[in-house]
Amino acid sequence: MIYLDNAATTKMYEELVEIYKEFGCEKFFNPSSLYKPSLDVALEIRKAKAKILEFFGSQAGEIIFTGSATEANNLAIRGVLKKNSKIVISEGEHPSVYNTIQDLKNNGVECEIIPLQKDGLIDSQKLYNFVSQNKDIRLVSVMHVSNETGAINNIKEIVQNVKKINPSIIFHSDGVQAFAKIDIKNLGVDLYSISAHKIKGPKGIGALYIKKGVRLNPIITGGGQENNLRSGTENVANIIAFAHAARLYSQQYDINKMLEFRTVFLDILKKKICDLIVTTQENTNTVPHIISLIIPKIKGETLLHIMESKDILIGLGSACSSRSKSNRVLQAMGYSSNLSESSLRISFSPDNSLEEVITAAETLASAILDFRK
Amino acid sequence: MIYLDNAATTKMYEELVEIYKEFGCEKFFNPSSLYKPSLDVALEIRKAKAKILEFFGSQAGEIIFTGSATEANNLAIRGVLKKNSKIVISEGEHPSVYNTIQDLKNNGVECEIIPLQKDGLIDSQKLYNFVSQNKDIRLVSVMHVSNETGAINNIKEIVQNVKKINPSIIFHSDGVQAFAKIDIKNLGVDLYSISAHKIKGPKGIGALYIKKGVRLNPIITGGGQENNLRSGTENVANIIAFAHAARLYSQQYDINKMLEFRTVFLDILKKKICDLIVTTQENTNTVPHIISLIIPKIKGETLLHIMESKDILIGLGSACSSRSKSNRVLQAMGYSSNLSESSLRISFSPDNSLEEVITAAETLASAILDFRK
Repeated sequence: MIYLDNAATTKMYEELVEIYKEFGCEKFFNPSSLYKPSLDVALEIRKAKAKILEFFGSQAGEIIFTGSATEANNLAIRGVLKKNSKIVISEGEHPSVYNTIQDLKNNGVECEIIPLQKDGLIDSQKLYNFVSQNKDIRLVSVMHVSNETGAINNIKEIVQNVKKINPSIIFHSDGVQAFAKIDIKNLGVDLYSISAHKIKGPKGIGALYIKKGVRLNPIITGGGQENNLRSGTENVANIIAFAHAARLYSQQYDINKMLEFRTVFLDILKKKICDLIVTTQENTNTVPHIISLIIPKIKGETLLHIMESKDILIGLGSACSSRSKSNRVLQAMGYSSNLSESSLRISFSPDNSLEEVITAAETLASAILDFRK
Repeated sequence: MIYLDNAATTKMYEELVEIYKEFGCEKFFNPSSLYKPSLDVALEIRKAKAKILEFFGSQAGEIIFTGSATEANNLAIRGVLKKNSKIVISEGEHPSVYNTIQDLKNNGVECEIIPLQKDGLIDSQKLYNFVSQNKDIRLVSVMHVSNETGAINNIKEIVQNVKKINPSIIFHSDGVQAFAKIDIKNLGVDLYSISAHKIKGPKGIGALYIKKGVRLNPIITGGGQENNLRSGTENVANIIAFAHAARLYSQQYDINKMLEFRTVFLDILKKKICDLIVTTQENTNTVPHIISLIIPKIKGETLLHIMESKDILIGLGSACSSRSKSNRVLQAMGYSSNLSESSLRISFSPDNSLEEVITAAETLASAILDFRK
């Protein structure tokens, strides 16, 4: 089987399985208990936080572990909410941000959605205009890397410009598709969400980076774990596994290999499919491990299943909105609803081989040509 | 090492480690994706839900997996909240309920806390009186088994009586210390929270049982997983492990063995420590695997560390409030703040042996006598 849906989830590193034995069956103690074996576990959690904090550079902050990046996004947004203050996001956000905003809107919170450009990046000029004209903005949330197209928003620059206009704004970025893949050092963000299962770590663990001095209210209260910001007994094994995966993945991820994969994959397709629309930008503003395509007049789902019958797994876009036929983000980039139903997402991991990439591209090209006959 | 703090957390079944390999490294697919390997994973999640639902008897309902029982308690309480409606809990609730109520109170929600009796059970007559006199109650939350004393509230009877007075009340019970240990069939509850790591399952997974027809709002929004009630990619391995642990634990848990442990442990202590206060009731209204004690004039923490030096781990009470010196629940039962600081909690698991229990009791008795010399 060739697995090319790594933006949906990844295969966990096999060496992490040992962690479940170690922290599930040996050092299984509750980190909140008072005896030394528990203090040792609490120390391991702090070490995991320190390992993850290294990715953020010299900007002081803390890591709060959550049950998912979705929870981290909810904590960031709901945790900073204040009465009569606005929230601003981009049209390209993941459902965990976008639908949270819809939920808040339904509850009377004022939210503004800034459009995307054709290239999948946020229209930053429109963002700056809105921020200039609205003094009551509490939070701006702009994702770092698009889970749909791989487009990399220039978060560092956007944060600087937004804060120049209004220094009291809290800036959050969903970094799920960026973390351990591209440099996230010293972005200047106040809040940043990350996930383990996109980098060959386990499912069920995410984290929110919080810059020193930024105040949040918890959305889950109780025993006061995670510095009172996320109560509940810590998911020790997943936390340790997350920190481990982050280090392994960032070492394993080779951008040149990914660039080669993208070039080879697209070259094969472009040669054979004359009406192919590549919705991913082939430039340095895009992570090379995510390719977004439109094959006009064939439903993405049809091609997904044809490819599946040939033992190759690809995606349509966000797995979290897989039940929706059309693709909101591609439409925000200017593609018609009809075209957006014909989109495919191919996403690589460091585990893939060039041979797999070539096979997948040739199989997809043949599948398209066969279907059209 | 003798581990007698099983109400804080338990050692995971070693056979569950295999699940992390299977669902982390083999069937690692995102349950929301559209190809068959993902549908198979989604099916495994549904099977896990069905296994857990069996514990609830014939009462129709669904299981929503969460990152912890704390999250399940938060979802139950925050999810049913309506403007201008009251919430009623008992004084004995776990911090995940008690502190959530404090948080809501700070935000203007009216909450009533019903006192405990000396035996650790809720004063149900006071509950009924309050419910009779207040028509605007939205939620009553009463824990099934006390994590501090093991006292078993008669939830079935309490639900019946509360609903007789006001059928529109939603009844929630925190069943963390009851699940897979005592019968929870057909209690009549609308909502019921459970946890995996108290029954030799993994940390980082809990669930909320929701009776058919009961409507909730999510506290974590996004991709719409878990029937729109808890977004975020499912923690597949932990879910499968939870269902597995529930079955294993309920088969392994032997109430007669636990009763023997309790009797033997207390008999040894009572003979040697004349001023011992057993705050646990030794009757059928109490789970036998949790013993709560007060050793007057010695701080619980002191004895915990003396026992630790002899390689025996015991607890003080809820690990989630271990940083607090005095014990809120014992005080609610009528013990002085001073006495509550001298409390200990000993909690057994099916893994313990009678020999361990005898050793622990004799060691504790000697430690007390030595300390007092």
